[in-house]
Amino acid sequence: MLALNFKKMGGLIPAIVQDYKTGDVLMLAFMNQAAWEQTLKTGRATYFSRTREVLWVKGLTSGHIQRVKEIRVDCDNDTVLLKVEQVGGAACHTGYASCFFKKVEDGTLVHVGQPVFDPKEVYQL
Amino acid sequence: MLALNFKKMGGLIPAIVQDYKTGDVLMLAFMNQAAWEQTLKTGRATYFSRTREVLWVKGLTSGHIQRVKEIRVDCDNDTVLLKVEQVGGAACHTGYASCFFKKVEDGTLVHVGQPVFDPKEVYQL
Repeated sequence: MLALNFKKMGGLIPAIVQDYKTGDVLMLAFMNQAAWEQTLKTGRATYFSRTREVLWVKGLTSGHIQRVKEIRVDCDNDTVLLKVEQVGGAACHTGYASCFFKKVEDGTLVHVGQPVFDPKEVYQL
Repeated sequence: MLALNFKKMGGLIPAIVQDYKTGDVLMLAFMNQAAWEQTLKTGRATYFSRTREVLWVKGLTSGHIQRVKEIRVDCDNDTVLLKVEQVGGAACHTGYASCFFKKVEDGTLVHVGQPVFDPKEVYQL
């Protein structure tokens, strides 16, 4: 198994998630050792939820899984970059394609683009 | 000043850095409130060095500064994405354009591409 440095952040590493076709950055999540190993093994992006403190297979609730097409590791072995196919077209729980849908403009945040899905329908809130 | 959530990581937020032209992810760093404010004010990417525990104007030693072209904030206001012009063509202290120059292939890490500069020359090691 590829050894990463999980020590710097108390057992976690940040995982940057990028659309493998467009290059858009979709989200940032965290992995512990188990999430990293499961991602390598299954080819499905799996993270560690810091709030729920459990392994989190991205898309398990919404169906919007992330198929891992390529993995990059940084110079220090303490951050990974996943290039993924985002099933359903949206990575963000708000329905936007990317979590980074707010742009800084003149000291305020402006929403960029439109949501791909309605969270109320997908999560049956 | 735009308010971000620095509480989740003890005063820090992750900052993903992307080349504004190519879309390549260059590096990941961390910001505290002061680094965030200085980045907004100066338009030069400024981070917080976790190892040295000081503000870190990227490129101050090497000359390879990052001119911030666009800033995105994520859904939770706890991660930012900087789209930058990387002066000198390389963000990584190893001389590679991106810190993510190691690719996972068949259970090993393979270097992708070639360094843009020689760290020995740039940092006069």
